[in-house]
Amino acid sequence: MSSFPVATMPAPPVGVVGLGQLGGSLAAALAAAGRPVAGWDVDAGAREAAAARGVRISRELAGVVVLAVPLPAVATALDELTIDPDATVTDVGSVKVPVLEVLGDAYGSRFVGGHPMAGTERSGHAATDPGLFAGARWAVCLDPGTDLHRWLRVAEVAIAVGAEVVPVTSADHDDAVAAISHVPHLLAAALATVAGQAGPLALGLAAGSFRDGTRVAGSDPAFVTSMVEGNAGPTAAALARVQQQLARPWPDLVADGHAVRSRTTGRRPVRVPLDRTALLALGRQGGAVTGRLAAFLEGWVPEGA
Amino acid sequence: MSSFPVATMPAPPVGVVGLGQLGGSLAAALAAAGRPVAGWDVDAGAREAAAARGVRISRELAGVVVLAVPLPAVATALDELTIDPDATVTDVGSVKVPVLEVLGDAYGSRFVGGHPMAGTERSGHAATDPGLFAGARWAVCLDPGTDLHRWLRVAEVAIAVGAEVVPVTSADHDDAVAAISHVPHLLAAALATVAGQAGPLALGLAAGSFRDGTRVAGSDPAFVTSMVEGNAGPTAAALARVQQQLARPWPDLVADGHAVRSRTTGRRPVRVPLDRTALLALGRQGGAVTGRLAAFLEGWVPEGA
Repeated sequence: MSSFPVATMPAPPVGVVGLGQLGGSLAAALAAAGRPVAGWDVDAGAREAAAARGVRISRELAGVVVLAVPLPAVATALDELTIDPDATVTDVGSVKVPVLEVLGDAYGSRFVGGHPMAGTERSGHAATDPGLFAGARWAVCLDPGTDLHRWLRVAEVAIAVGAEVVPVTSADHDDAVAAISHVPHLLAAALATVAGQAGPLALGLAAGSFRDGTRVAGSDPAFVTSMVEGNAGPTAAALARVQQQLARPWPDLVADGHAVRSRTTGRRPVRVPLDRTALLALGRQGGAVTGRLAAFLEGWVPEGA
Repeated sequence: MSSFPVATMPAPPVGVVGLGQLGGSLAAALAAAGRPVAGWDVDAGAREAAAARGVRISRELAGVVVLAVPLPAVATALDELTIDPDATVTDVGSVKVPVLEVLGDAYGSRFVGGHPMAGTERSGHAATDPGLFAGARWAVCLDPGTDLHRWLRVAEVAIAVGAEVVPVTSADHDDAVAAISHVPHLLAAALATVAGQAGPLALGLAAGSFRDGTRVAGSDPAFVTSMVEGNAGPTAAALARVQQQLARPWPDLVADGHAVRSRTTGRRPVRVPLDRTALLALGRQGGAVTGRLAAFLEGWVPEGA
């Protein structure tokens, strides 16, 4: 059990690179909370919108540097910026193993992958919302090479904007999001396409089940494509599992789906040491970290876990 | 072009059999609009809730009699009631060909099938909402044997509670809802089941795309099963089309789904004669009837149609 005196460390500044929906919302939320936050975006409109929300615009970043750029830009987004050599680098990309390969190579143990499970089908700085992360889960990756203290600094940024931190390995993250995010995007696209082929009558009759089932098909297709192709293996495996389900007798399938969807568990508070094994166990139970108390982290697990 | 003087007919009373979410909401909405409405339910709690909303409780029903019971109960729900021999009988079931076979046999041209594209994953009289139909589409079936004047009486009930009426044949309805409602229910069940198998970590990370994609898996499984099994042929065909889509290259699929989902058309007002061919053409264009003006019905079609 660690006894690292985390409570005595001052909160480091945050630098956000990419001020679109996720980065702009994060920077705005931190600024609103009074935390020193600097940011940069290649787009002048995004810089101006962030500045208006209290974000200091700068190419020189230190503390926790958050890469909030599209996946294909992750490898090069810091090239023209000056990053403090001791900065912790994190990201918000929806796939974690490929990002770890690129940024782990570049930044070693200074890199800690992250993925806030927030965001809507909208994008860009016009979709900025400082409340975007309130109550959301934020995966913060704890891989064999991850520095625990840097992990904690990233986790604290997520907690500072109201998120709950799920400790997870990059590989487990990618398997999980294939099932709960990437396959849903493909199903929504297939459903919308088939309804479009069915014609105006079908679209004219479309109601709640169709709107809900296809909402994420409204997301930027370039974003969705880079997400599913960046996580191709786990997504293909999860899609195959969905197709197996669709071959079952419908009454069994409907009953099982209902049982999962209507499963509600309470949550009970727990204290977790700043310890790799304990943190990963918390995430695997469906729990999350919500704060810290001296040497312990506060969190919760589902009741019964 | 018909010149039927519809404007001179008084609105007939409405009788609602089954006072759960759909029937209870319809009866409450009509009562709130000052229209004479009677209702019946085998459940005393549902009767009391409807009475409290101004619905007269009676086993003797006349005018437009709306069957708002689960599909398996449609054939027998009127057996213990006294229905005026001139009453027009309609229903709100989510499948139309099988209901037409049963009630068309029993009531001949007095039967007109209907299906409001409303309702949530909740059910029962506690889920009653007089605003449930405001702005919703309501399919009212116009089959070769349908009496046009009785069709109009049913359409006017739907319009009276704020719905927009889509004229459609029973077979076209069942094909359309397979794609936009019944398959989405199966996909939601498959998605929820696979996420449940993936375990607490995956469910703990689940965010908007999962919640939206599985919301309808929260519906009563008996209701969903009778719906998909009652429309097995069209649902299996639409599911096969979805599976063909899922075998395409992901970038193409994502682009096509996005194109359908982000397609927005305006609507332009039209006048439609009370004429079978003209009404069915309106529905096929994605349009709807919203009212009437002497011999003409008011409605709209998508811009460009």
